Amino acid sequence: MSHNSFGHLFRVTTWGESHGPAIGGVVDGCPPRIPLAEADIQPFLDRRRPGRSKFVTQRQEPDQVRILSGVFEGLTTGTPISLLIENQDQRSRDYGEIRDRFRPGHADLTYHLKYGVRDYRGGGRASARETAVRVAAGAIARKVLGEGVTIRGALVAMGGDAVDRANWDWAAVEENAFFCPDRAAAARWEERLLAARKAGSSLGAVVEIVAEGVPVGLGAPVYGKLDAEIAAALMSINAVKGVEIGEGFAAAALSGEENADEMRMGPDGRVRFLSNRAGGILGGISTGQPIVARFAVKPTSSILAPRRAVDRFGEEVEVVTRGRHDPCVGIRAVPVGEAMLACVLADHLLRHRAQNPDAPAEARLPRN
Amino acid sequence: MSHNSFGHLFRVTTWGESHGPAIGGVVDGCPPRIPLAEADIQPFLDRRRPGRSKFVTQRQEPDQVRILSGVFEGLTTGTPISLLIENQDQRSRDYGEIRDRFRPGHADLTYHLKYGVRDYRGGGRASARETAVRVAAGAIARKVLGEGVTIRGALVAMGGDAVDRANWDWAAVEENAFFCPDRAAAARWEERLLAARKAGSSLGAVVEIVAEGVPVGLGAPVYGKLDAEIAAALMSINAVKGVEIGEGFAAAALSGEENADEMRMGPDGRVRFLSNRAGGILGGISTGQPIVARFAVKPTSSILAPRRAVDRFGEEVEVVTRGRHDPCVGIRAVPVGEAMLACVLADHLLRHRAQNPDAPAEARLPRN
Amino acid sequence: MSHNSFGHLFRVTTWGESHGPAIGGVVDGCPPRIPLAEADIQPFLDRRRPGRSKFVTQRQEPDQVRILSGVFEGLTTGTPISLLIENQDQRSRDYGEIRDRFRPGHADLTYHLKYGVRDYRGGGRASARETAVRVAAGAIARKVLGEGVTIRGALVAMGGDAVDRANWDWAAVEENAFFCPDRAAAARWEERLLAARKAGSSLGAVVEIVAEGVPVGLGAPVYGKLDAEIAAALMSINAVKGVEIGEGFAAAALSGEENADEMRMGPDGRVRFLSNRAGGILGGISTGQPIVARFAVKPTSSILAPRRAVDRFGEEVEVVTRGRHDPCVGIRAVPVGEAMLACVLADHLLRHRAQNPDAPAEARLPRN
Amino acid sequence: MSHNSFGHLFRVTTWGESHGPAIGGVVDGCPPRIPLAEADIQPFLDRRRPGRSKFVTQRQEPDQVRILSGVFEGLTTGTPISLLIENQDQRSRDYGEIRDRFRPGHADLTYHLKYGVRDYRGGGRASARETAVRVAAGAIARKVLGEGVTIRGALVAMGGDAVDRANWDWAAVEENAFFCPDRAAAARWEERLLAARKAGSSLGAVVEIVAEGVPVGLGAPVYGKLDAEIAAALMSINAVKGVEIGEGFAAAALSGEENADEMRMGPDGRVRFLSNRAGGILGGISTGQPIVARFAVKPTSSILAPRRAVDRFGEEVEVVTRGRHDPCVGIRAVPVGEAMLACVLADHLLRHRAQNPDAPAEARLPRN
Repeated sequence: MSHNSFGHLFRVTTWGESHGPAIGGVVDGCPPRIPLAEADIQPFLDRRRPGRSKFVTQRQEPDQVRILSGVFEGLTTGTPISLLIENQDQRSRDYGEIRDRFRPGHADLTYHLKYGVRDYRGGGRASARETAVRVAAGAIARKVLGEGVTIRGALVAMGGDAVDRANWDWAAVEENAFFCPDRAAAARWEERLLAARKAGSSLGAVVEIVAEGVPVGLGAPVYGKLDAEIAAALMSINAVKGVEIGEGFAAAALSGEENADEMRMGPDGRVRFLSNRAGGILGGISTGQPIVARFAVKPTSSILAPRRAVDRFGEEVEVVTRGRHDPCVGIRAVPVGEAMLACVLADHLLRHRAQNPDAPAEARLPRN
Repeated sequence: MSHNSFGHLFRVTTWGESHGPAIGGVVDGCPPRIPLAEADIQPFLDRRRPGRSKFVTQRQEPDQVRILSGVFEGLTTGTPISLLIENQDQRSRDYGEIRDRFRPGHADLTYHLKYGVRDYRGGGRASARETAVRVAAGAIARKVLGEGVTIRGALVAMGGDAVDRANWDWAAVEENAFFCPDRAAAARWEERLLAARKAGSSLGAVVEIVAEGVPVGLGAPVYGKLDAEIAAALMSINAVKGVEIGEGFAAAALSGEENADEMRMGPDGRVRFLSNRAGGILGGISTGQPIVARFAVKPTSSILAPRRAVDRFGEEVEVVTRGRHDPCVGIRAVPVGEAMLACVLADHLLRHRAQNPDAPAEARLPRN
Repeated sequence: MSHNSFGHLFRVTTWGESHGPAIGGVVDGCPPRIPLAEADIQPFLDRRRPGRSKFVTQRQEPDQVRILSGVFEGLTTGTPISLLIENQDQRSRDYGEIRDRFRPGHADLTYHLKYGVRDYRGGGRASARETAVRVAAGAIARKVLGEGVTIRGALVAMGGDAVDRANWDWAAVEENAFFCPDRAAAARWEERLLAARKAGSSLGAVVEIVAEGVPVGLGAPVYGKLDAEIAAALMSINAVKGVEIGEGFAAAALSGEENADEMRMGPDGRVRFLSNRAGGILGGISTGQPIVARFAVKPTSSILAPRRAVDRFGEEVEVVTRGRHDPCVGIRAVPVGEAMLACVLADHLLRHRAQNPDAPAEARLPRN
Repeated sequence: MSHNSFGHLFRVTTWGESHGPAIGGVVDGCPPRIPLAEADIQPFLDRRRPGRSKFVTQRQEPDQVRILSGVFEGLTTGTPISLLIENQDQRSRDYGEIRDRFRPGHADLTYHLKYGVRDYRGGGRASARETAVRVAAGAIARKVLGEGVTIRGALVAMGGDAVDRANWDWAAVEENAFFCPDRAAAARWEERLLAARKAGSSLGAVVEIVAEGVPVGLGAPVYGKLDAEIAAALMSINAVKGVEIGEGFAAAALSGEENADEMRMGPDGRVRFLSNRAGGILGGISTGQPIVARFAVKPTSSILAPRRAVDRFGEEVEVVTRGRHDPCVGIRAVPVGEAMLACVLADHLLRHRAQNPDAPAEARLPRN
């Protein structure tokens, strides 16, 4: 990953600030002859879009993506795909009062000290708005991976209240405003988030992304491990403070017998794992089991409660962030996390077949 | 990060298998005129070395590093530094019985499926032995960072039993075999780990790395975020399943008021944070506060308890891993985690001064 | 260099096809606080613009560049700078007849075989139109290099007729339609090129780029040599078939005494070279002398004379390229070559100061 | 290309100085299951070895390569291949007198100014000795390309005296000390080079490398063009001052009709080019025709004739380079050029199949 790009062969570069004329990105290295239209991307953007429910920011952005290059007569051409999303509901005036102030929990201070100048409007480059481009790139990555690969995300905890995995239903995820797979939890969260917002506060969340149908063999020793690159991709999402794969931190409390997934042979010559504590990755390489990644999203730092801060003149100030903000940024991070995982997998798919064009896609073992 | 390299300007490439003639690496991009000798690196290798206590593998490797290039008359020259560590205590015969078998929790199966061939002896390229080169590179990275930056690690949990932070004493870390900062916990762990080993089992652990004195401004939006690259670097260590920065996953259970670190002015024009839940990084850029990262290490998969597995002929087998193994690989991961953080910081220091040569090293604000 | 990007720290990515809605690019890694406006870029685009004289294509493109990000209140912010140039005079109908045909000397066949699909209109991605974005990026690179560095280009041969270096006058370059530094040669070329165009033919050319005021020390051993990266940058320009530095191919006919530039001390402690056959680079690193690079541009392949070719159905055909084409593409390659050299130097300036922040900018030697 | 590495997927990193304990490198990304032994590499090193004839340096280096990793039971494993060549005939005392002096035409001055310290012995990192590792890597690259691809080089001019292409015989190349394909030229050169050496002088040369059997489709728009990366690879060889592809600089003197290679259909559905002025590359992508690249090597700067120079104290001095030097470094550059072309092609082969796994290897067109 370099400054504003990630991926090696399926390479995504993004640009743009929250309140500039537009945001966008370039996807380089996409294989040719993949059917692609703006309509393939838009549904994913719509899932992430602000103003979608009362639980997310009321900023109204249609987030219409335009493809400016790399597609001809409905097919990708193998050349760079330029994506552009215009910024419409900018309301720069909302941000005047924080022009010189460094909001707690924000990138204001660090950008100021690093660059000596910053576009303070709406967070500028550090705005979560940048993640819309990730989601667009992720839609293309899904096309590269093909229909055999399914990538889905869900919110598994909000404000410390976790879902009950016994209640997990992927269908529920699309029914509530939280991408919550547990209907009972969703009901509790609704109350909870309304209360937090009413109190001028905000809540954190944990997001889980699951990729099924991933070919075996993606990833590479030792610094190009699939899990290492997933970790970077997820940690690069705004407000993320932790990433785990499979059992994650809980693995540290298990014994060796409990943790290592045992194997048996399936009826069709395929290796069958008796559990998936590894989260689908061993030695940095995919096993063919579902890849399971989770990430922790801190509570929104833009809150109404007054907070102690400083300004760029070295004066102590109090900051109250009005504007229109997500009371739980973790919600809209779900489609972003899916997109990042899709991009990492697409990149590794290309890297894998470059080096190992004859490798099997499934964990099948030939009986002599 | 590419396959066997990481870093952009301070770039580390490693090579070698557990049971080949040697392991080694190349550090490219190191600034010139830094005093460097093998003796500067050796103490860090000694901390990671096997056979150091009864709680780590009894494999006897002196792990003597040789510098083959890039240093002239005691100074780095700005050209690549080649590092070589000979493998001595190889005992390849120990591994014959697992030549065709895929041990649960190991990279055996995935390497086999990806590459169709693998050096099965001692884990080959996937062996934790590779991390010795990281430690050597980390020693050079510390030199690049200079004496103002201190990077220290500790084991903060073993087998689910966490240290009491009230007891934290960095001096304790060097006194026990666990790099444990809490003497009471160290005493408990000793019993616990002996019991686990006796039972043919193993334990997981959580490691915390703290970097103090880090200049403000390291890191970059949005995919080159300092925390994203730390996450990749730590997740690339063998057996790591989770990474977190600052408050990490616990941040997801906090409210916005609790989580965002408030700021006041210090007496000398420096910004003073009232807490450090962010772990020293905001918007992917260092704040000047201590950088705090933690990672979860799964319990050693090489255990004496028999486990169900398969072999490369598609036969179901039972695996018992004899050999000499760490009952808790998390212990020796402490110096490795320190080294990885040092390398990431050194790389970002160079990247930062390339773009921002006049940026301040400290979070000082000029009062008008 | 990766597919559609080049540079490491000052990194340029371009996108777009000749007849899509727009072309553009992203400049990542630009230092902050550099004054930058569209008006700083436009003059360079105007020099490269089609329709500027009767000797270049009559396609009418205003080539107005828009900056969509990375600049705030007139200053670069250190975040990616997105550049966009709309395509206006597209006339796709001109290209219908070559939709299925592979023009000799063009990328038609190779794109078809590599990708299985291509935007045939106007050369698509392989169009020289892409170079407009390079020129825009080069304008930013010049800002990074600062006013002390001057980068100028000239056409030094056309159709095998070279300038007389005794007549060299940089002022002449801006006076004629050929960027020719020799007024006498320019007069000859005018006749010659009109004759070639009348005959439905085209001419090749040689371009020379000179960078003065370049700090000493840019470049790096051994694959990051300054001349190696200049060679790649210039060879990546459409229609370029050769690159040389300093004496270039002529050096191969000299003796060792003739070729190696001798040194004396100047009055101010600066090293003074008695010649500059090296073209300002020794061991891949700049010496502080002018950097001199030349590149050969083949004659335009789009000509009126009928040529034997094949089509995608495997039929033998004759191709006559009507449309609006440059009779000598070398002419408009001059500002492109300048831009590429500017980008390479800006990138190396950042890389150099990352590793060697205290290195001197001039070749001064302290007398003891 | 970064400092001491090149290639993206087939990535070569080298290290080492002329008079250190060893030189070596790491080849990362090599596909697995390729038979490889030191004996496969050694013949290529032997062709480049010093002391092979009276026309090259008399330094006696057996240049025995050792493979330290990445090969198991005779097959590559897909993990990094570490290569090591010990330095034996070091004679550091020969270089004492130039410790403080900057030899004309050498990297002495620029390394001193850039790094402030340098290993002056035998050129240190800037020594042509580094190219031995390139040759070793090239031997592996040839294995990746397979037996269908033939890469051969020849010296086509020495001291301004060119071969007669009518006399070209590849068999002759292996018969004389110059890799000269024209026996008559070889005889002339023998006299000429002896005279030059006797006079304490040296000669330049032009090397041509031809790759046959290269699949169609290697390369990528627009900065990853195959010719751009070949240019960088060849220009990175010590003493190279110019690179050209196909007709090269001569193309600039041709008309459009003369230059663009016409096409007809062969009897087997294959495209047949009527000439190969393009040198096997169109639009940066291989056509399937032979790839032809040439590079100019300046005359050895280490000569007996006294030259004016300066030392690091700012004193004017005269330099006479005794030691053992090649009177024409172009000769030993032939196997190096072959190796660099092999590495670039291997890298692009992997990159191509990553993005275009189903692309045809030959320029065949289906007749409807």
